[in-house]
This record gives sequence, structure tokens and C-alpha cells, in this order.
Amino acid sequence: MSAIGVIATLRVQPGKEGEFEGVFAELAAAVNTNEAGNSYYRLFQTGETGVYKVLECYDDQAALDAHRASDHFRSIGARLGPCLAGAPEIETLSAA
Amino acid sequence: MSAIGVIATLRVQPGKEGEFEGVFAELAAAVNTNEAGNSYYRLFQTGETGVYKVLECYDDQAALDAHRASDHFRSIGARLGPCLAGAPEIETLSAA
Repeated sequence: MSAIGVIATLRVQPGKEGEFEGVFAELAAAVNTNEAGNSYYRLFQTGETGVYKVLECYDDQAALDAHRASDHFRSIGARLGPCLAGAPEIETLSAA
Repeated sequence: MSAIGVIATLRVQPGKEGEFEGVFAELAAAVNTNEAGNSYYRLFQTGETGVYKVLECYDDQAALDAHRASDHFRSIGARLGPCLAGAPEIETLSAA
């Protein structure tokens, strides 16, 4: 078992930042409540307007798979989609 | 008070990865022990050989300043320097 980190970069449409942050807060709460295999999940703003990065950590690949397959990720993620200006960029890392 | 995230990208010289990881583990332990204002500090390997990213989070700017000014950061950081292939790249983020 080896922990997996994720840096997800999300570009939000101008004017949608508030809606995005509100819906994302619901997602983060659901992750914290429901995912025992997630140890970190936090949204940050970058220095570029409308560009956010989510820093994430999972205990192992199974925990990351469970995150992506979860009802909360799918349902809340579907509400985030219309706020985005493009597909998320996902960088996967392995714990050193 | 607003939390601050950091993504630090570190390029390690070929063959120095083991030494780097060992010294970094000392630094992470010292951060966890001594920095009440740090809430996350974890080293990850990227998909590129010798390139690491540290994901970090501090309660506020004062906590980040205290990290950088700490004896452990300065003394252990000085031992990491000879392992690196260049200056670290630091991206600072603000909690959303």
C-alpha cells in the first residue's frame, strides 16, 4: 500500500467563482464524511484569476478509485461541471 | 486569517534520491513536531524521475514565515541543498 497524491487544476468561468466554491464545499464535506481512505482534500486559489488547485491524498489506489466512483463525487461533480471553463488537469503523485 | 497552501517542486540530482528522501523525512518530522501553524506537509514523487513535490498548508502567513525562519528548516534544509539539481520552485496558494 502506497499513498497517492493528486493535484487537480480547475479553471472556472468568469463570474462562476462563487457558485463553484459553494458547490465544492459540499463535495469536500462529503469526501471528509464518506471516504475513510482519503486523508487530504482541500481547495486553493492560485495566483491566476479563476484557476483553482485541489490538493488531495489517498491511502492507496483503491481509495482513489473509490473516490472517483462515489455517488457524491459523481452527483456533486456534475454540478461543478457547468462552472468550469475546460476539463480538469489531473497530476497524480506517489508518496515518497 | 486565511490558510496558505504551497506546492514546492524539487529536482534531485541523479543518484541522490535516497539521501534526499532520508533527510527530507527528518525535516517533515521536525515540522510536525514543532509547527503548530502547519496543517499539512508531505513529500510526493512526480512521474518524472528525480522530481518531487511537497504539498504544504499553513494556517496563515505568520505560520509560513515561522516555517521558513525555523531552525529545523534552515539546518535540515542546508543538508538537502547538496542533493538538489537547482533552486526549488515554489507556488503559493490561498485557501478558497
